[in-house]
Amino acid sequence: MSDVRADDLGPWLSPENLDFVRRKVPMVYVDVVPVRLDSDGSLSRVGLILRSPREGGLWRTVISGRVLLHEPLRSAIARHIEKDLGPMALPRIPASLQPFAVNEYFPAAVPGAFQDPRQHAVSLAYVVPVDGDVAAQADALQLAWLTPREALEEAVQAECVSGHGALVTGAIAHLGALP
Amino acid sequence: MSDVRADDLGPWLSPENLDFVRRKVPMVYVDVVPVRLDSDGSLSRVGLILRSPREGGLWRTVISGRVLLHEPLRSAIARHIEKDLGPMALPRIPASLQPFAVNEYFPAAVPGAFQDPRQHAVSLAYVVPVDGDVAAQADALQLAWLTPREALEEAVQAECVSGHGALVTGAIAHLGALP
Amino acid sequence: MSDVRADDLGPWLSPENLDFVRRKVPMVYVDVVPVRLDSDGSLSRVGLILRSPREGGLWRTVISGRVLLHEPLRSAIARHIEKDLGPMALPRIPASLQPFAVNEYFPAAVPGAFQDPRQHAVSLAYVVPVDGDVAAQADALQLAWLTPREALEEAVQAECVSGHGALVTGAIAHLGALP
Amino acid sequence: MSDVRADDLGPWLSPENLDFVRRKVPMVYVDVVPVRLDSDGSLSRVGLILRSPREGGLWRTVISGRVLLHEPLRSAIARHIEKDLGPMALPRIPASLQPFAVNEYFPAAVPGAFQDPRQHAVSLAYVVPVDGDVAAQADALQLAWLTPREALEEAVQAECVSGHGALVTGAIAHLGALP
Repeated sequence: MSDVRADDLGPWLSPENLDFVRRKVPMVYVDVVPVRLDSDGSLSRVGLILRSPREGGLWRTVISGRVLLHEPLRSAIARHIEKDLGPMALPRIPASLQPFAVNEYFPAAVPGAFQDPRQHAVSLAYVVPVDGDVAAQADALQLAWLTPREALEEAVQAECVSGHGALVTGAIAHLGALP
Repeated sequence: MSDVRADDLGPWLSPENLDFVRRKVPMVYVDVVPVRLDSDGSLSRVGLILRSPREGGLWRTVISGRVLLHEPLRSAIARHIEKDLGPMALPRIPASLQPFAVNEYFPAAVPGAFQDPRQHAVSLAYVVPVDGDVAAQADALQLAWLTPREALEEAVQAECVSGHGALVTGAIAHLGALP
Repeated sequence: MSDVRADDLGPWLSPENLDFVRRKVPMVYVDVVPVRLDSDGSLSRVGLILRSPREGGLWRTVISGRVLLHEPLRSAIARHIEKDLGPMALPRIPASLQPFAVNEYFPAAVPGAFQDPRQHAVSLAYVVPVDGDVAAQADALQLAWLTPREALEEAVQAECVSGHGALVTGAIAHLGALP
Repeated sequence: MSDVRADDLGPWLSPENLDFVRRKVPMVYVDVVPVRLDSDGSLSRVGLILRSPREGGLWRTVISGRVLLHEPLRSAIARHIEKDLGPMALPRIPASLQPFAVNEYFPAAVPGAFQDPRQHAVSLAYVVPVDGDVAAQADALQLAWLTPREALEEAVQAECVSGHGALVTGAIAHLGALP
C-alpha cells in the first residue's frame, strides 16, 4: 500500500503523477485546528485526531491535507474537515484567508520547519470553530476534544507527529489561551 | 445635549468624569465591521450603519464603541453589536483577539490616523460575521447590507465619517474581496 | 518564446516538466510589496515595477515568483527581491511568515481571486521594507516609488495586472495608510 | 514609593490623576518582545529583561508601557524600547500596527487574561527586531538574549511575571520558532 491518501486520487492525480510532482515542486497544504468555542468566543476545547499509522503506535495530528488543482482554499478547508470530522461538523470556514501561521514541511529535519518524509509542502494553518456533531472518519480513529491545558501536556505533545504539537501550541497562543 | 452616548453613562462614568479622563489618557475602543458571509465563508455583504447626527445630514459608520473598566474585549464587542444591531444578530465573536487593524483616532487631523473631535482613542478593528436578524437600534437609523463593490463606491465612501470609509476598504481587503 | 521566466529554469525544472506539474497541482508563490518606511516605521512609498510584456504595452506589478522545491519561504522571498531589485536592496525579510494576505490565482476569471493564464497558484503576500539601493533587474524596466495616494490613483491601478492593483491597495490598508 | 514608573509622570499625568483614571477606564499599553534575527529573517534570540522589584526577588519581563495622551502607537513603541534598551538599540518599528496578540491585564486573576494589580490595561503586543547595541536602562537590571529553547525553559518561564512567559511563548510561536 502506498501512503497516498484516498482523497489524493481521483480524476486529478494518479499515484505515479503525485510521486512525480512531489519531486518537482512544493505541495500546497492546509492545516486546520478544529476548536470548540464558549459562547463569548473564547477557546473551550482543541480537537486532536488520533490516527493509527501503518508503522504501528498512535499518532495525534490536526486536520491536514493537500489543495487540489483549481480548488479554492476555502473548498479545500471544508473538504478536509468533512473528510476527518464527517458531514455534520458545521465548521465556520474562515472569512479571511490570512492564516495564523504558515508551516513549511521538508523531507529532512530542518530547524524551524516541520517534517514530512513524503514531500516538501507549504501549509496554511487556520483555526476553525466547529459547532456541529463530529464523528471521526476515514483513517481517523477518534477525535479528542482537549482543554488547552490538556493539549499542552507533555504526554499529549509527545504523541503529536509532523510538528503538530508545536502547531497546536501556536493555535492556543493565537487564541490567547496559553495557561 | 452632550455627545456622550448612552452606553458611556451608568455606574462607571459620569459625563464629567468621562470628560476628565479624555483629557488625560487615550480611550480603548473596538471597531466592528459586521458582515454577511456566503456558505463557503467568502464575503457577501458589508453592514454599514446610517446615523443622523445632531449636526444634520447623514453619516455612515461601522459599529464603534468604548471598552469599559474591567470589561473584557469580547464582552465589549458583543455589547456594541447588540446596541447597534439588536439582540437577535447572532454575531460570531472572534476566536482570536488579533485585530485585522488598529485604528488611532486623534482630535486633530493627523496623516495616517482617523479623526474624533471628542478624544484620542486606540481602536481594535474586527470583522464579525452576523448570522441572525438585525434591526437598527438606538441612534442607528438603518443598517444597509452592501456588496463589496457598493461599499467601495465613491458616493458611499463620501458618506462615511471618522475614517470609516478607509476602515471598510481595509476590511474588504482583509477578506480578499476587493474587486 | 515561452512565458517561463528565467528563474524557473535551472537544475530543478525544465519547461516541459513545469508545464506538466502546472497541469497537476497548484504552484506555491510569494508576492512581495516592497516599501520605503519613514524613520518612525510608517509607510512612505510603495514600490511598483514597470514591465514590458511580449504582448506590448506597459504593466505594473509587485514582486512575484515561484517557490522552488526544498526552498525555504524566506529564501524565496530574498531571491525574488534580488532578482527584481538587485543585490543592494537590503530587504528586511519578515520575522514572521504570517502573510498579510493569501492570493489565489486561477487561469480563468474567478470572483475574489486573481488571474494567471499560466497556472493555478497560491501566493503568500508580504510587505517588505527595503533600506538599500535598488536597480531594476532582469525583465523589470523600472521601479517606481509611489506615495500611497499615487499608488491608489485610477491611472496607476489600471496599469496593474494580475490583480496587483488590489494587492497594493490591500498592502496600503494593512499598513494603515489609506488616505 | 509609588509603583508609578518615571515615564508616567511629566506634563501629562500626576500620580493622583493616574490613580484616578485607572479607576475609571482601561489603560492603553504596548508590549514589545525584542528579538535578534538571523540574516535570513529567522529568529535567533529573544530579549528578556531582568528587573528587581521592590518586593524583592527577580522578575523577567518583556518591554511594556503605557501609551500617553496624543502619543501615536509607533512613538510609544519607540519610547519604551529606548527607555529599557537605551538610545543605540536601532529597533525596526513595525510597518503595520496589526499586533500579533492583544493582551488584557486585569487587577484580579481572570482565566485567559494577564494580571496587573495596578490596573485594567489593554495591551498591543509586537515583536520588534533590534539591530543595534542595547544597554539595560532605568529599572531594568539586565537584558538577556536567550535562544527560543532557553526562553521556553521552565525555570525561565517561572521567573516571568504578569503573564509575560505566555507572551514570549506566543511570540516564539508567531515567529515559527517553537522547538
